[in-house]
Amino acid sequence: MTVDLRSDTITRPTPGMLQAMFSAKVGDDVFGEDETVNQLEEKVAALFGMEAGLFCPSGTMTNQIAIKCFTQPMDELIADQTAHVYRYEGGGIAFNSAVSTRLLNGYRGLVTADMIEPEINADNIHYPRTSLVVLENTSNRGGGSCYTLEQIKPIAELCQTRGLKLHLDGARIFNALTHTGDLAADYGKYFDGISVCLSKGLGAPVGSVLLADKETIKQARRIRKVLGGGWRQAGFLAAAGIYALDHHVDRLKIDHAHARLMSEALAACPWVSSVMPVETNIVLFDTVQPAERVVEQLAENGIQCMATSPNRIRFVLHLDVHPDQVEYTISTLKQIK
Amino acid sequence: MTVDLRSDTITRPTPGMLQAMFSAKVGDDVFGEDETVNQLEEKVAALFGMEAGLFCPSGTMTNQIAIKCFTQPMDELIADQTAHVYRYEGGGIAFNSAVSTRLLNGYRGLVTADMIEPEINADNIHYPRTSLVVLENTSNRGGGSCYTLEQIKPIAELCQTRGLKLHLDGARIFNALTHTGDLAADYGKYFDGISVCLSKGLGAPVGSVLLADKETIKQARRIRKVLGGGWRQAGFLAAAGIYALDHHVDRLKIDHAHARLMSEALAACPWVSSVMPVETNIVLFDTVQPAERVVEQLAENGIQCMATSPNRIRFVLHLDVHPDQVEYTISTLKQIK
Amino acid sequence: MTVDLRSDTITRPTPGMLQAMFSAKVGDDVFGEDETVNQLEEKVAALFGMEAGLFCPSGTMTNQIAIKCFTQPMDELIADQTAHVYRYEGGGIAFNSAVSTRLLNGYRGLVTADMIEPEINADNIHYPRTSLVVLENTSNRGGGSCYTLEQIKPIAELCQTRGLKLHLDGARIFNALTHTGDLAADYGKYFDGISVCLSKGLGAPVGSVLLADKETIKQARRIRKVLGGGWRQAGFLAAAGIYALDHHVDRLKIDHAHARLMSEALAACPWVSSVMPVETNIVLFDTVQPAERVVEQLAENGIQCMATSPNRIRFVLHLDVHPDQVEYTISTLKQIK
Amino acid sequence: MTVDLRSDTITRPTPGMLQAMFSAKVGDDVFGEDETVNQLEEKVAALFGMEAGLFCPSGTMTNQIAIKCFTQPMDELIADQTAHVYRYEGGGIAFNSAVSTRLLNGYRGLVTADMIEPEINADNIHYPRTSLVVLENTSNRGGGSCYTLEQIKPIAELCQTRGLKLHLDGARIFNALTHTGDLAADYGKYFDGISVCLSKGLGAPVGSVLLADKETIKQARRIRKVLGGGWRQAGFLAAAGIYALDHHVDRLKIDHAHARLMSEALAACPWVSSVMPVETNIVLFDTVQPAERVVEQLAENGIQCMATSPNRIRFVLHLDVHPDQVEYTISTLKQIK
Repeated sequence: MTVDLRSDTITRPTPGMLQAMFSAKVGDDVFGEDETVNQLEEKVAALFGMEAGLFCPSGTMTNQIAIKCFTQPMDELIADQTAHVYRYEGGGIAFNSAVSTRLLNGYRGLVTADMIEPEINADNIHYPRTSLVVLENTSNRGGGSCYTLEQIKPIAELCQTRGLKLHLDGARIFNALTHTGDLAADYGKYFDGISVCLSKGLGAPVGSVLLADKETIKQARRIRKVLGGGWRQAGFLAAAGIYALDHHVDRLKIDHAHARLMSEALAACPWVSSVMPVETNIVLFDTVQPAERVVEQLAENGIQCMATSPNRIRFVLHLDVHPDQVEYTISTLKQIK
Repeated sequence: MTVDLRSDTITRPTPGMLQAMFSAKVGDDVFGEDETVNQLEEKVAALFGMEAGLFCPSGTMTNQIAIKCFTQPMDELIADQTAHVYRYEGGGIAFNSAVSTRLLNGYRGLVTADMIEPEINADNIHYPRTSLVVLENTSNRGGGSCYTLEQIKPIAELCQTRGLKLHLDGARIFNALTHTGDLAADYGKYFDGISVCLSKGLGAPVGSVLLADKETIKQARRIRKVLGGGWRQAGFLAAAGIYALDHHVDRLKIDHAHARLMSEALAACPWVSSVMPVETNIVLFDTVQPAERVVEQLAENGIQCMATSPNRIRFVLHLDVHPDQVEYTISTLKQIK
Repeated sequence: MTVDLRSDTITRPTPGMLQAMFSAKVGDDVFGEDETVNQLEEKVAALFGMEAGLFCPSGTMTNQIAIKCFTQPMDELIADQTAHVYRYEGGGIAFNSAVSTRLLNGYRGLVTADMIEPEINADNIHYPRTSLVVLENTSNRGGGSCYTLEQIKPIAELCQTRGLKLHLDGARIFNALTHTGDLAADYGKYFDGISVCLSKGLGAPVGSVLLADKETIKQARRIRKVLGGGWRQAGFLAAAGIYALDHHVDRLKIDHAHARLMSEALAACPWVSSVMPVETNIVLFDTVQPAERVVEQLAENGIQCMATSPNRIRFVLHLDVHPDQVEYTISTLKQIK
Repeated sequence: MTVDLRSDTITRPTPGMLQAMFSAKVGDDVFGEDETVNQLEEKVAALFGMEAGLFCPSGTMTNQIAIKCFTQPMDELIADQTAHVYRYEGGGIAFNSAVSTRLLNGYRGLVTADMIEPEINADNIHYPRTSLVVLENTSNRGGGSCYTLEQIKPIAELCQTRGLKLHLDGARIFNALTHTGDLAADYGKYFDGISVCLSKGLGAPVGSVLLADKETIKQARRIRKVLGGGWRQAGFLAAAGIYALDHHVDRLKIDHAHARLMSEALAACPWVSSVMPVETNIVLFDTVQPAERVVEQLAENGIQCMATSPNRIRFVLHLDVHPDQVEYTISTLKQIK
């Protein structure tokens, strides 16, 4: 048996999703004429209580476009030091937007208004102008940790008071909503921009939707074009996104339950030194021996996963990990030495 | 009857192409695991005699990545003043690469080594460093005009002598090959980079492949990630590209024949002041009255097309324009006033 | 005897200017505490009818800061194809501002509203957003040709109507004022930004003042800091600028008279194929033989000048070229073969 | 009596320095013809055992040029989180070089090879490419703390092993040399680039020299031009720099002694909660009451200084603070409440 726990980006479309993709009506999206793309953009915007959406080839692109929209060159954004936009987008903040990053030491990737406030630069030509805060919900490097909307509210208020924009990297926002019980529709009140990824837990093959007000999305469309993200008959991929929103949100709780089972099993393993509390679909745990040795042993048993540091391993649960694979993984974990 | 002559980007997949897409094996292309994407990249590279390929969401992205790979910030590239990379990519040369553009007044978008040579800057801190020449074959704004490889050869030699890179914007390279009879495989000898678009005349829904040597493609993969073009299960789109290469290249001569028929009909219209000689699938013609008025009259008859300047109109032929639509268009042209 | 006609940038301070420099009261200009710098900035702003000024180490810096202030990344500016900002500032438009350049074929570097209007891009994501027009008065590559304010007025009106900013590269603005008789104070009505260079015809050792409204200058001060132009006790140089404004403006007519004498002498030389009409302190002429050969012959006679193209030579007159040197040069010209 | 302890940038030339400036031979430095500038560049390069130098208007410019020379867009540099290049250069790392910054939590601004090594990114398209380490000696925010060359050596070795460039922000390098007893000439062995500031402790009015190998300085000259730092008769300022190197290095030990006296006095004040150990010319101390209140009380007594955080104040000693002013300050400190 093989199990791929490396990432929730590796899922393949289900038969139902495939069927939806290939019955999609498509058109030239650069001309705004792909009706399935338009339908997806409207659907996601409505879901989160935002005005408009833009469908892009990746979550990196929606994040990078948002950062460009909400900043000027020479500005500074504030984010946790583990933030995906800072760590895993190839240096795009500086490259695409000529913007500096002020880093916070949050708890499991989550930050508070109190941490942000002292890092807002005074108006002084020596300092970059602080113009944007980026949150990530759930936090990837935090092991799937979540903000509740209650926790987000004071950050949004601080941003409003101080004239900062607030962007949400929602690569796994539906996992957060599943865990917290917050409503997607309430998010629009707090954020200027939201990236909603369709290709991770939701299981669509490609794409992410950037949400914002109409004016920002108009500017975003221009930036997408310059970055080369202006695609043509993208409706096939948008159809997968629509299907995912209709059919794959409720089932995220299964991934979360799987993650908890994994975490309990890991906690009982003598070769595991600690397991981070599981909130959503990610399990982060530390190993006594070098992580790479464990990764190899698991690979020999058909289980793929990744070391995120010399003694830390990440498991990501998703819709291509079925109950029997969870069971198999758990029994294999007991045999690791 | 409706006929869409606005662009060859608007085509929709044929049933055979859809079938190929539907059966594609996919994987996570960010991990290099989408076998259909890999197959497409290898196929196009082999076809043009280049080492490696990178499948991207648009021709703009492949061009912009190539320009970034072949230049440094503060450099200058040389291109015809009608070049797509300069005119229609949203200012990406400056935005993505911080590079200046030196413009040539070519003939119908085509330039010669003699035009390029005096524009190569001397080594002087006042001038940007000239590092790249970009050709476009066929030339969009030139009305589908083509270079032969014989014409390209002296440009390639000049570039080699002067230490410049040479990139081909091959948005419609298969139209050029169809017209000139040159072999794709010979192109690899002359160019450092080639963008091969799949979503125009070839009729695939999305995508373009950047070709270069392995080292450049490795760098290109990094740039694609930072621009947000790192997509996941892109194999569905790659499958359409493979199908297009196998089934839609030979038929381009039909589009060319259609274009010639259109051009002959236009030449006979009293409201047309001149028609640019047709080489491939684009017809550019000038109107006595304002172009917008003609565009409107055609639209009332179900024929969509675009004015490219106050007195110039462009027709683009493609696989979704069938013989009866050509006939209908020609008969409609005779009724324009 | 030696004569240096290469550029008006090579002048050395006169004894009076030196005296003014070393009696200057200075302070830390980064803190806004250099009173001589402040005095210079106010003096130049008042002279041109603008709100505020910023003293910078070079005309390139004032131009580049202005372009950054008046544009956003991905925008496009319009300028003559010979413009200093495009040709001689090392590709800074793209490097510092990520801005594209649309080029005009003006007459001797001078353009009209009619040339500009059709080059303003429509609102379309394929095109860069046109946001700025840059004029150069006098035009260096145009051979010191001048705009009158009457000629500038319709350009300023077009810019206002179309929402474009208008910047003046005034590297040699005092030469233009001397020739046209226009008043400096009237310039402020037409331009959003003006670079006033002190180190060319005016003979100060270093520096240029950027003029604009207060808000723009506040932003300019920030950009100057980031580019590294935030200097400390710059008052020594500012004092030279003040002295130059008080003592070296009236004498520019002498340079112009010298240039006319040179031009008449050149017109009579059989080895000169043509001389551009002289308006200010620059003489451009074409040679029958290769320009480099003439440059060498003049150098052997102690006269330094520059070829600006294979058959064109530029003489620049300035305050370190005295009447006897003009006479000597003229008599030498007659001996060139 | 007034005492200005805000910064060592505020010094004014001594009569001897003014005399040196006044007699300087100057020329057009853009043409490389200012002999005093050339002399300064050679003198500083020789002093530090480097090949070549470039005189620039500020330390920010020499740092920013070095960063541009030693990186590519999308790269990442490593520096302490208090580094001047990151904190006080207006976001220039991202703006001028499109480079990300990885931050270390050093001790008083000083870092070790052990801190750097785990932050060098693996070769993975998700991560920026690590290409540069920047050290600052002395550390401004560290309160004038110093590296010895012994401490720098393992960092330089790590950089060499891992293919990273190493740049020194030597804003106060002579203070470090004075304290450690290391030889300037040994620095060239360890660094790829060094910024040597002349306008801080050394007391020159304007300028900083970038040191590197000849090839890098050639590239630096081009970048300086594009940033607008290509100045003309800069020899007046260079002369001040030469004078400062000849006359103001030995006296830095006086500033250090003054700083120690201040620190001892502060340690005895009940309103001071702690004083950072003094190594060079900077005294950082924490106050029981809000720092701003202390700053105000000192200002009322003619003593200017700056709060660097809500409870921290910085005193900077320099050649315009004479013994009687030190004495006066100390006696004033005793009266603060």
